[in-house]
Amino acid sequence: MDHTAEFRRWKAQCLSKADLSRKGSVDEDVVELVQLLNGREPYFTTSSCAGRIILLDGDINGFEVQKQNRCWLLVTHKPCVKDDVMAALKKANGDAILKFEPLVLHVQCRQLQDAQILHSVAIDSGFRNSGITVGKRGKTMLAIRSTHGLEVPLSHKGKLMVTEEYIDFLLKIANQKMEENKKRIERLYNCLQHALEKENITNARPKEKIKDKNKSSYTRKKKRNPEEAHSKCFTEENVKECENDDDLGISVTIFPEDY
Amino acid sequence: MDHTAEFRRWKAQCLSKADLSRKGSVDEDVVELVQLLNGREPYFTTSSCAGRIILLDGDINGFEVQKQNRCWLLVTHKPCVKDDVMAALKKANGDAILKFEPLVLHVQCRQLQDAQILHSVAIDSGFRNSGITVGKRGKTMLAIRSTHGLEVPLSHKGKLMVTEEYIDFLLKIANQKMEENKKRIERLYNCLQHALEKENITNARPKEKIKDKNKSSYTRKKKRNPEEAHSKCFTEENVKECENDDDLGISVTIFPEDY
Repeated sequence: MDHTAEFRRWKAQCLSKADLSRKGSVDEDVVELVQLLNGREPYFTTSSCAGRIILLDGDINGFEVQKQNRCWLLVTHKPCVKDDVMAALKKANGDAILKFEPLVLHVQCRQLQDAQILHSVAIDSGFRNSGITVGKRGKTMLAIRSTHGLEVPLSHKGKLMVTEEYIDFLLKIANQKMEENKKRIERLYNCLQHALEKENITNARPKEKIKDKNKSSYTRKKKRNPEEAHSKCFTEENVKECENDDDLGISVTIFPEDY
Repeated sequence: MDHTAEFRRWKAQCLSKADLSRKGSVDEDVVELVQLLNGREPYFTTSSCAGRIILLDGDINGFEVQKQNRCWLLVTHKPCVKDDVMAALKKANGDAILKFEPLVLHVQCRQLQDAQILHSVAIDSGFRNSGITVGKRGKTMLAIRSTHGLEVPLSHKGKLMVTEEYIDFLLKIANQKMEENKKRIERLYNCLQHALEKENITNARPKEKIKDKNKSSYTRKKKRNPEEAHSKCFTEENVKECENDDDLGISVTIFPEDY
């Protein structure tokens, strides 16, 4: 089987399978992005998380515990208020940690070139920790990741180490990050649409069909302005935002700006 | 010029240039790793940070400020004590944030295949956010990154939002993460050596020559046991550690374990 045929088979297989995540469905904030990618011949998404605030309870050795052994006290993809966290913290008996995790999206790509286009769009949209993986069997995957996190220890052996006022302050920051993350997802969607048009990457199937198929599970909340979308893509502001986080204060022999 | 000759030219050019980082030299904890990579034909490092604890003072809008406008109140690549942070915090008049940032290493690779080998070693050593970038001009870069961070807001408009006891608690965690990061760097070094031998990737120049060259600026602190190095590479513990952070609780249609 040639590579394109094999990719098509993988894609069909993947998209026909049940969603194996805890939640069992794609997060609302990335449904459109996931649909846009899955609707194009060279891409399909294999996992996604739109971004979330989570409260984990580790054992008393904190970071050493395996993630799968941690107890999830709270998970939300929406802005979060102090009372929710205070209630969840009552169940903590180890070292509780509050985290904001931005978008993570894994996209399998037909060819390296397709991954390069998507990677470039992701970086331009502010997802600077994105990167390609090429497997031994030729599977090419792009992981879209942001540098934009938060990880705050809150309790030790069940004892709260901070004040309620601090938690309130912290949640304002976490909610702001959530908002900024949503903006970046919008920007990624718009830039991707623009890039796919430019590269003339055709739909895998008629757009209407996809929309119909997903109508029941998702209603578009916000109408995008296509003009806004295009003008948003390559403004100076974006370019600034796309500067690598790693280029400050670290040992640089030469930092390739145009690699 | 063919690709290999062009790569050699880039490499020679890069390694002959001055270190442009603030610090002006490679961090002690990654000197050996950087030397190992630069001593092999298909690789050279373009930037590195071994891992650090930093205290930043942002403006009062916190996260919105450009990183380059932030004031660095404290930077250390060594374990950190409360008094240092308390002293540095006195200079904060915005929103101070304490961060632990693990190893970040950018390595330019001759070919995609060379990047794949290094990427695989990085993932196996616990650097799960690593990824390849392939530029338009064919430059192939691997960014080695860990998921292993910490980002904690400490003050708001110059006012400390947490207790000294909390800062003490927080620094214990940050120092533990620093220690774990060092172990991962050691593991990466050992696994890389093993992989290079297996792939039969030869030295770019005789090993002794490199060591001699760097003797003046660096003295090896700890003798590695080669047997330990090999046995460390593919233990069950490592495999567990290498499970993707993203595979819990996120929307998964299918997660490719063997891509």
